[in-house]
Amino acid sequence: MTSHVQFELIHTCKQSGARHGRVTTPHGSFLTPVFMPVGTKGTVKTMTPEELMAIGSEIILGNTYHLYLRPGEDIVAEAGGLHTFMNWPRSILTDSGGFQVFSLKAKKKPSEEGVVFTSHIDGSRHLFTPEKSMQIQQKLGSDIVMAFDECTSWPVDKEEAKRSMEMTSRWLERCINAWDDTKPQALFGIVQGSTFADLRIESAKRTTSFDLPGYGIGGLSVGEPADQMNAMLEAIEPYMPTQKPRYLMGVGTPDYIADGVLRGVDMFDCVMPTRTARNGRVMTSEGDVTIRNAPFARDFGPLDPGCDCYVCQNYSRAYIRHLLSVDEILGLRLTTWHNLYYLMRLMEEIRQAILEDRYGSWHEDFMRKIGK
Amino acid sequence: MTSHVQFELIHTCKQSGARHGRVTTPHGSFLTPVFMPVGTKGTVKTMTPEELMAIGSEIILGNTYHLYLRPGEDIVAEAGGLHTFMNWPRSILTDSGGFQVFSLKAKKKPSEEGVVFTSHIDGSRHLFTPEKSMQIQQKLGSDIVMAFDECTSWPVDKEEAKRSMEMTSRWLERCINAWDDTKPQALFGIVQGSTFADLRIESAKRTTSFDLPGYGIGGLSVGEPADQMNAMLEAIEPYMPTQKPRYLMGVGTPDYIADGVLRGVDMFDCVMPTRTARNGRVMTSEGDVTIRNAPFARDFGPLDPGCDCYVCQNYSRAYIRHLLSVDEILGLRLTTWHNLYYLMRLMEEIRQAILEDRYGSWHEDFMRKIGK
Repeated sequence: MTSHVQFELIHTCKQSGARHGRVTTPHGSFLTPVFMPVGTKGTVKTMTPEELMAIGSEIILGNTYHLYLRPGEDIVAEAGGLHTFMNWPRSILTDSGGFQVFSLKAKKKPSEEGVVFTSHIDGSRHLFTPEKSMQIQQKLGSDIVMAFDECTSWPVDKEEAKRSMEMTSRWLERCINAWDDTKPQALFGIVQGSTFADLRIESAKRTTSFDLPGYGIGGLSVGEPADQMNAMLEAIEPYMPTQKPRYLMGVGTPDYIADGVLRGVDMFDCVMPTRTARNGRVMTSEGDVTIRNAPFARDFGPLDPGCDCYVCQNYSRAYIRHLLSVDEILGLRLTTWHNLYYLMRLMEEIRQAILEDRYGSWHEDFMRKIGK
Repeated sequence: MTSHVQFELIHTCKQSGARHGRVTTPHGSFLTPVFMPVGTKGTVKTMTPEELMAIGSEIILGNTYHLYLRPGEDIVAEAGGLHTFMNWPRSILTDSGGFQVFSLKAKKKPSEEGVVFTSHIDGSRHLFTPEKSMQIQQKLGSDIVMAFDECTSWPVDKEEAKRSMEMTSRWLERCINAWDDTKPQALFGIVQGSTFADLRIESAKRTTSFDLPGYGIGGLSVGEPADQMNAMLEAIEPYMPTQKPRYLMGVGTPDYIADGVLRGVDMFDCVMPTRTARNGRVMTSEGDVTIRNAPFARDFGPLDPGCDCYVCQNYSRAYIRHLLSVDEILGLRLTTWHNLYYLMRLMEEIRQAILEDRYGSWHEDFMRKIGK
């Protein structure tokens, strides 16, 4: 399989083993560890592409399930692909639809063929298979395509976790067989196995045996304690090729990111920073702040005194609280902008600490600072 | 009364009598005829100040009634005034609260003292008087303060229109008496009189007798036919001082603006362009377009082929339709941006036509083009 996405491992932290690298796609390159803002329906909620670039975002995520339902992958393809459709010139990763399909209440039990689900919009029934997911994602034209996998919920018994992991492995083979290698896209396989170390290791071996340009780690951060997630990352680490990027799917709170980086993860995504922003919760150097609360009505300082973003340079907590109180869209824009900027800056700090071989100490200080 | 706002009449169109001028306030100057975007609650919905400046907006409007209820004028004053609170460095005009109070269903009949109204938020009762309106607007710190008036609905019988107009006149005197002249703000009086030419003339004489820095024309575009509005503007025109700006309140559809300019109006405001934008209706050089409609799902052209705005240069109808269909905020941002830009460019065209003494022909062509 031709690789349209390359990974260069720039530095491994001597203190911690954390990795700093660069991923290059047909739409540019980005430094890792990286946080990818989520643009579920062809837009990172409230933000323009220019604003995403202004905060330093080089890659965003799109959701296959949502884009398949609306506007439909054919319309996106007619527009020239997702990059053109949404006017985003940099890299895009699309998930496979697997996570959304499996988190739907209306789904039926998956079969070997795939999974039938009921649309949350109009109740219509749809069959997603590995082949279908590849076809949709290749029409969307994302730079990184995720394999169609089954994401187990937590907790799950070992027998079920094993059955599911093995099916994900067979589905990966079907994804590869359905792959159109002439398109400038790269396919990442996904390691599953719930919280069973031996299943995770088995999944890592099977998945990496296909020599793909990168690997996702799925089915974590779905409710299990942080130490179990970390134990799984540690279990598979020796089996993951050092020269390929590792993407911990759906993980994006600062503490989980910091833990993941310590265990060799290169890529992260999460709706958390944008979703909590719309609920009026902002991340600051002094901890999280619920800006809707009454004490901020007369607080004329910035969201975060330690932040130099556009929002903190121009608007007060009192004004943003007012905007959220009266349901003004600008309020959602400002909290979203700030939260994404905060995470982008955190990733920069992390990369710098790795480069300077002090990520272990940075991680310790950071966890203490945020009380974890 | 010291005048903190000056008007310079630059040119009167030889073909039509339409006026082109410049208003200077403590926060800058703007060319007339001008359209003022409405920022009801301390924000022009969906837009940042930088975006408003990018489309060429030099003055926006704020609503006293809404800002009084939330966040309250004291918080705005503590922030340093509305300009600082919302980070808008250019001019602001605030209405008096009169129109909102009188359009509330929960209001009681106004008395000579003022009007008691029930908050639409929490049902609390409030008394607005001319003195109170001045006090609030002076705390907000707007450049142009509107007198507290009674806005009659339409139709209304002549006796009631006369009573109301005379009370508005007495209220103006109370506004002037309550005015703090040390603040860098200017007070505009308001001409009322419904659709009775003799009452309008009487109101114009009374209002202009106070020699204020500018004058509003209220109680029009409240349901009466366009020719009645135009007749009222023609009736009062000879009584309005040429060296003062004339502001036709709440008027902002392109045809009404064009008609108003023809009859000597200098300033306009309306929620229409921003409100219809949020409903998915955009103004284009080919007429209004309801972008939510199905035929646009595969239309990869810009909102308006004749437009050079940020939105038309970067996004397709298909993408914007998709965003609106899935309730994405970016969709509302893009339609709002385009509609405001469209109106700003229309005002530029109007000013150019006046300068070149061809506004009469421009008006005729324009009305034909939009089918009025």
